[in-house]
Amino acid sequence: MNTLLLLSAPGTGHDSGAVPTVLLALAFAIVCAKLAGELVERLGQPAVLGELIVGILAGNAALFGGPELSRLASSETLTVMAELGAVLLLFHVGLESTPKEMIAVGGRAALVAIVGVVAPMLLGFGVGGLLRPRDPWMFHAFLGAMLAATSVGITARVLKDADALRAPFARIILGAAVIDDVLGLLVLAVVSGIITAAATGTAVSAASLFSIVAKALAFLIGALVVGSLISPRLFRGALALRSRGVVLALSLGFCFLLSYLALLAGLAPIVGAFAAGLVLEDVHFEDHVQRGEPPLHESLEPLTAFLVPVFFIRMGMLVDLRSFASASVLGFAALLTLAAILGKLACGVVAPKGISGLTIGLGMMPRGEVGLIFAGIGAQLVLAGRPVIDSGTYAAAVFMVVATTVLTPPLLLWSIRRK
Amino acid sequence: MNTLLLLSAPGTGHDSGAVPTVLLALAFAIVCAKLAGELVERLGQPAVLGELIVGILAGNAALFGGPELSRLASSETLTVMAELGAVLLLFHVGLESTPKEMIAVGGRAALVAIVGVVAPMLLGFGVGGLLRPRDPWMFHAFLGAMLAATSVGITARVLKDADALRAPFARIILGAAVIDDVLGLLVLAVVSGIITAAATGTAVSAASLFSIVAKALAFLIGALVVGSLISPRLFRGALALRSRGVVLALSLGFCFLLSYLALLAGLAPIVGAFAAGLVLEDVHFEDHVQRGEPPLHESLEPLTAFLVPVFFIRMGMLVDLRSFASASVLGFAALLTLAAILGKLACGVVAPKGISGLTIGLGMMPRGEVGLIFAGIGAQLVLAGRPVIDSGTYAAAVFMVVATTVLTPPLLLWSIRRK
Repeated sequence: MNTLLLLSAPGTGHDSGAVPTVLLALAFAIVCAKLAGELVERLGQPAVLGELIVGILAGNAALFGGPELSRLASSETLTVMAELGAVLLLFHVGLESTPKEMIAVGGRAALVAIVGVVAPMLLGFGVGGLLRPRDPWMFHAFLGAMLAATSVGITARVLKDADALRAPFARIILGAAVIDDVLGLLVLAVVSGIITAAATGTAVSAASLFSIVAKALAFLIGALVVGSLISPRLFRGALALRSRGVVLALSLGFCFLLSYLALLAGLAPIVGAFAAGLVLEDVHFEDHVQRGEPPLHESLEPLTAFLVPVFFIRMGMLVDLRSFASASVLGFAALLTLAAILGKLACGVVAPKGISGLTIGLGMMPRGEVGLIFAGIGAQLVLAGRPVIDSGTYAAAVFMVVATTVLTPPLLLWSIRRK
Repeated sequence: MNTLLLLSAPGTGHDSGAVPTVLLALAFAIVCAKLAGELVERLGQPAVLGELIVGILAGNAALFGGPELSRLASSETLTVMAELGAVLLLFHVGLESTPKEMIAVGGRAALVAIVGVVAPMLLGFGVGGLLRPRDPWMFHAFLGAMLAATSVGITARVLKDADALRAPFARIILGAAVIDDVLGLLVLAVVSGIITAAATGTAVSAASLFSIVAKALAFLIGALVVGSLISPRLFRGALALRSRGVVLALSLGFCFLLSYLALLAGLAPIVGAFAAGLVLEDVHFEDHVQRGEPPLHESLEPLTAFLVPVFFIRMGMLVDLRSFASASVLGFAALLTLAAILGKLACGVVAPKGISGLTIGLGMMPRGEVGLIFAGIGAQLVLAGRPVIDSGTYAAAVFMVVATTVLTPPLLLWSIRRK
């Protein structure tokens, strides 16, 4: 077969020319992600940082005389695969908690979460007003929203590496980070809704605002309540199926369906994936596991190992290093990072007696994938002919995410061991 | 967020509108594949048949008053994901054998394989000449090539379900099926090369033919020899890496890289994936597994469970049921199926003493995914303004694949237990 033939074989359709590119990109991504992850882990940093750096280097290879790869990041297939990676990651994170556990850590976690959303929002709003006074106030509000969400994944990973997952402060941090995530996504929905309404010329009516929040809450509550009722029955009924892999197939189907329904409800697909993870509990599959099925978290591991790095490398590739080459961007990045750190340290004020406020605050600090997802959404939002997150702001946001991600592990570890 | 925003969020790029479609399609595919697989398995048939049927029903839903889904099958993302499914499946099949095992079953398996390639080719060529006398001889040769390859996956699966994997006849069948696959792909490369040369108006020179075969052989031998030398060293060196998932990451990287190199060498990516599977052996990762890494075949299971059904469902979706609605297509399908069955039963003639020739022949019978991949490639090849495999021939090929796949399990089981 010659090359002409092969670029259009063996799938069909006009576009299977994507196959060789995707194969090479995946081979590169999966090996480099592992090597870079190993390297940064040896330096005491989380693996996700290595993946971001691989992406940043790949996306900017042309600056160092390498090939021009940045267009790859916006190919349809890699965009969708990265999105599936984010969905699977948030599904996995959701699996680590249950709706009950969220209620059990209760009031205190909610208090920490609310402070952890309000304080960074106010500070982010202030940074926007200070450095970009001529931008509409909605841009400043979006900046604040971007600082609101804690990354449950990174937080949990650091606590696990520190062997502190069952300590009282860890349960508060995790509970608050979970609530914080949902609150942050609600804030994002409201702010994005206001901006979209403004962009399409419609007035921001209290009714449309209410409808956005009501739809999102209806989805979340509906998913949690209906899901919690259906899920045990579903898996009990599935015991009638004898073939292997039933738990994985039904769980993935459930995760993808809720991700799709979240989209319909006006939320991001990851919210649906996270809700799906919260609802599913190990106890639902206990009988399946006893029959020889692998536990769900074990069968998810290879899937996340395959797709999650695609997400982080692609995110890194979207960073244009040339945009850092301006003093105003660097100043912006430094102030935004400061706001992000101080905003979360403020959580410490409402820590219960006997638990270090500093440890709580540091635990809430990492932004990780959620911050990047918010920045990506902002880059898509257009108001007054400009994207809400322009390339300079995007670069500053990535700086903020990288900085909070890098600083958390050593500082949190130090704070835990201080006593 | 409103719908407009979300269809272009949260990735970036112009085309992330594919995300909701893919999420819904995957939720549907993964659950229906499992349910249909369970159903046909209860009827004593392999699960792959259920997935094909789901695909055929989905692709032809409009005929029964359902939605028009057939365009979905040619979306870029689902095409690439299906292709990744085929790559992972052949990688997995390759892992079940080693280059050494292929040499050990040696001469007899090779003899069986050669008869199993030559006989169906001659019969397929004859069917083409009989029913389509006005087509160029190259079309007939492609028909023959399409009948040549045995599906290692289905064969192995049936032998495993019959608990006969270690019987002498099973080793001959598996060895022959492996050689057969490679021979079949070489035949396909030669026939496709001849057709492409004819289509582009260049003469079919012995030199270009030689170059096709030489490139393919160079890739195969190079991949096996260099791969066998590098692979143990690679994984021994990788023991220096401490993070989890090293075996999976390196193996997938190796598989995707060889798939890409196979494309460069003029072969289908699945040939590279199969070679990668042959080269990798459990013994290379033994130290990793002792350190707590999951064995490779275990971590591949969720990946194939996720992506392989996408491949078979998509293949089913490409079947246009309306094309069966002609007596000539049905006659063609019946004759093609007869040629496919008789061609492989001919293998029995060279069975060694004491082993049932009928069992060997029946074991070589299933065509499965490889026959469909060949048909798909033929649908892409254009000669004299017509595709080599038109929709009627494609329908007949699917009929042949479905028939050989359906008939093998009960007949092979009966032949094994006959004694």
